[in-house]
Amino acid sequence: MTPNDAELAVPPPLRAKRLRLHTQHQAVVIMRADCHVCRSEGLASRSQVLVSSNGREMQATLFQIEGDDLLAIDQIALTETAWKILSLDEDAAVTVTHAPTLESLASVRRRIHGNRLDARAIGSIVKDVAARRYTDVHLAAFLTASAALPLDEQETVDLTGAMVEVGERLRWDSPIVVDKHCIGGLPGNRTTPIVVAIVAAHGLVIPKTSSRAITSPAGTADAMETLAPVDLDIATLRRVVDAEGGCIAWGGAMHLSPADDIFVRIERELDVDTEGQLIASVLSKKIAAGSTHVVIDIPVGPTAKVRSEATARHLADRISAVASRFGLSATCILTDGSQPVGRGIGPALEALDVLAVLRGAPDSPDDLRRRSATLAGAALEIGGKVASGEGTTAALATLADGRAWKKFQAICEAQGGMRTPPKAPHVHPLIAPRAGRIVHINNRKLSRLAKLAGAPEAKSAGVYMHVTLGQEIDKGNIMLDIYAESSGELAYALEYARRSPDIIEVEISS
Amino acid sequence: MTPNDAELAVPPPLRAKRLRLHTQHQAVVIMRADCHVCRSEGLASRSQVLVSSNGREMQATLFQIEGDDLLAIDQIALTETAWKILSLDEDAAVTVTHAPTLESLASVRRRIHGNRLDARAIGSIVKDVAARRYTDVHLAAFLTASAALPLDEQETVDLTGAMVEVGERLRWDSPIVVDKHCIGGLPGNRTTPIVVAIVAAHGLVIPKTSSRAITSPAGTADAMETLAPVDLDIATLRRVVDAEGGCIAWGGAMHLSPADDIFVRIERELDVDTEGQLIASVLSKKIAAGSTHVVIDIPVGPTAKVRSEATARHLADRISAVASRFGLSATCILTDGSQPVGRGIGPALEALDVLAVLRGAPDSPDDLRRRSATLAGAALEIGGKVASGEGTTAALATLADGRAWKKFQAICEAQGGMRTPPKAPHVHPLIAPRAGRIVHINNRKLSRLAKLAGAPEAKSAGVYMHVTLGQEIDKGNIMLDIYAESSGELAYALEYARRSPDIIEVEISS
Repeated sequence: MTPNDAELAVPPPLRAKRLRLHTQHQAVVIMRADCHVCRSEGLASRSQVLVSSNGREMQATLFQIEGDDLLAIDQIALTETAWKILSLDEDAAVTVTHAPTLESLASVRRRIHGNRLDARAIGSIVKDVAARRYTDVHLAAFLTASAALPLDEQETVDLTGAMVEVGERLRWDSPIVVDKHCIGGLPGNRTTPIVVAIVAAHGLVIPKTSSRAITSPAGTADAMETLAPVDLDIATLRRVVDAEGGCIAWGGAMHLSPADDIFVRIERELDVDTEGQLIASVLSKKIAAGSTHVVIDIPVGPTAKVRSEATARHLADRISAVASRFGLSATCILTDGSQPVGRGIGPALEALDVLAVLRGAPDSPDDLRRRSATLAGAALEIGGKVASGEGTTAALATLADGRAWKKFQAICEAQGGMRTPPKAPHVHPLIAPRAGRIVHINNRKLSRLAKLAGAPEAKSAGVYMHVTLGQEIDKGNIMLDIYAESSGELAYALEYARRSPDIIEVEISS
Repeated sequence: MTPNDAELAVPPPLRAKRLRLHTQHQAVVIMRADCHVCRSEGLASRSQVLVSSNGREMQATLFQIEGDDLLAIDQIALTETAWKILSLDEDAAVTVTHAPTLESLASVRRRIHGNRLDARAIGSIVKDVAARRYTDVHLAAFLTASAALPLDEQETVDLTGAMVEVGERLRWDSPIVVDKHCIGGLPGNRTTPIVVAIVAAHGLVIPKTSSRAITSPAGTADAMETLAPVDLDIATLRRVVDAEGGCIAWGGAMHLSPADDIFVRIERELDVDTEGQLIASVLSKKIAAGSTHVVIDIPVGPTAKVRSEATARHLADRISAVASRFGLSATCILTDGSQPVGRGIGPALEALDVLAVLRGAPDSPDDLRRRSATLAGAALEIGGKVASGEGTTAALATLADGRAWKKFQAICEAQGGMRTPPKAPHVHPLIAPRAGRIVHINNRKLSRLAKLAGAPEAKSAGVYMHVTLGQEIDKGNIMLDIYAESSGELAYALEYARRSPDIIEVEISS
């Protein structure tokens, strides 16, 4: 005896309620524990569910709620990620079922047990990750497995390709498209706007998109935004590049490597660096951005991301090898990662350093100028504009004679108009506790200090350095200034500085 | 110049709001994105925060909300886990700061990179896990690392010891305390109540605590609860054991291995079995329960947890080795895991099987009777009550002459009174699609079917088997009955059965 149609209960739809709750990449839905769908589908808190509405669907984590304070029995609350992806309106009809089994998890398990994965397996994992079907547990398991048994070159190539596959791609009308990347971990290292200005001034195409800060006090997009609009749509971006040869825009809306955005958050929470993941992260974005030649800055130092020169060279070799498999030419430059570059740490403060270098101001930070010239010079060489070995000289000249500054102003105008970076109303110095020499500068703690002061949300907030490594100072000298937009944030930063005496270490000179 | 005290802003307390939101072990708090604490502490969604109230503190994941629908700007909503652990009242003052850095994560990272951990490192990890400081990402990373590089014997011993350390411990006045465990994955395998009755009838002390179902259609505690109260506090449990020598109670309130409760949920989500974790999970509970001699049932079969006899023997050896390091004597019995044991799957249906075996009913499931006798017999032997090799015979006799039934009734009375298991109002058969032989029974799918029918929440719901592996049947014969408390749940189970033809496979006899 088969049940009639009335008994084959398709769960009646629920009514969507917007909660305005932010849970980052993880989509969460909330339903009443006594909701009929929970009973019929056998759902419990932390179940993975498939949420469908109006032809769209996505996976989410379910949390159950008791009582009727928040929801009527036929309502479902969705967090912002879910609300936007499903393009919901209030009271929209939503269907919820068990999420289908994730077949690709079998591949994750295989890798956990020591088996290397082929392109098909990696591709299916990355597809599921980009579609937000992986929970934090699944993501962490995959990333941990990739660290415990490090990805080999073929797996890194396959991962890079899979990450490109699931994102958007930009294409340009030029045979040479230059790009730049910094491996990171160095506050204030805002070379990109200067590099783009120099490179574009020489007629190379450099359509640079950058990210906002995730855990640092400023991303390139944050600093640039204090100088010009960065939130460009693709049509505007193309117009700017057509007119000026280059741009410095925010890449977040381009979705060039959506799986990477998800991986990166988990990697930060784990604080585990897996070389294969790092390479795939960097290169997938560059390939998706349509670049042909990329310069990669690898700062090396005890509190930078890469701790030794040997590690850096090994990384550089691997990056070049994987890049060449995609027809991408990658040049890695090892730079000094033992202290911040420039003086400002924070969006507006870094922008001021950039302006000073471009304008050739007499007190502009020389280290920022030289590093930008080194990286721009490498770009000029691999872009075929100058002979090998002459890049840095040519870049310095482009700064000195004002061509870079002129090009930068033109780019800002094309992006929507040049702005003056804001100035913070509250400032407080950190002074040297004793006379001596600066023997150590802790980049991580400087970043934390700048963030407590309010960066990057408070654009004028951050830290302005007055000393460099190796410098001799007297007791009472100002080592740095803390800038904040509110007295409360200033107080938090000062409290942190008070209990962290080793942000800048001063050793008594013998 | 140092800031004055007024500037050293300790964040003003927030007011607690109960949400009645269930997020399982993960504590979640919700705060307004524009709340002053979020700004001053630099908190973002998914930040880990330390939540303090009235002398208690715990770690939680923060989600931020916009607008004032749910919360006033100085309110903080907490999910049930957090609410209970902090013993909050509505409007209680709550302080929120950044969670401190987890030092033990450095050990997790060391293990990810292939280094084995010592007792101190493992201990610090387990301590943090039990204190709920580990996010899903951290938990998954540790468990994955323990699978990628399997825990060796010393690490397994250290993990077991650490898990015992963070929980409660029970102590008994007897030199011999018997325990039993089933590795699992086999529906209906409800031997525990029968084993306890037999063993206690012989005068051995067997204070059995069991769990409720986590992902199965019934745990021992669920089935037993349809026969007698199981929710005993420790004082009552001791009284029962003093009076009758044994009990069959719910162990959930005893907190014998709190880290294990957390690990288990992540392991299920990953579906990765790590032998070391399994051993530590089983033995930590037994040691904490104060047991001296434990019988472990290891069902072996293609859809059970342990798939081959070789794997089972290896596991058995490792269990015994680790157990002996704690002065615990563990005897592993390999049993058939190719099909369910007994006929009922679901709390009340399994209880009926138990009653039938204890009463010696003529149609009682013979496989359940024999398996219970085997396990009880092993317990009688290691408990020194019968000679080696005579255990099963003695156990069968104890069933046949009614001593076990008498003891079971006494235990139920001591626990609060014997009950009659409920009977479900809706029942529907699954019939054989063709004549032939039963060649495969999928335990996992049977469990899912029983759960869709409502087990274990609906105590009388589940599945009742009418066939066994190898049996010859005719087309139209009833293979099993589905029991449900509501027509909706019955419909869901039938829909699942309709689209899953391979729950029970019938092969045409040649």
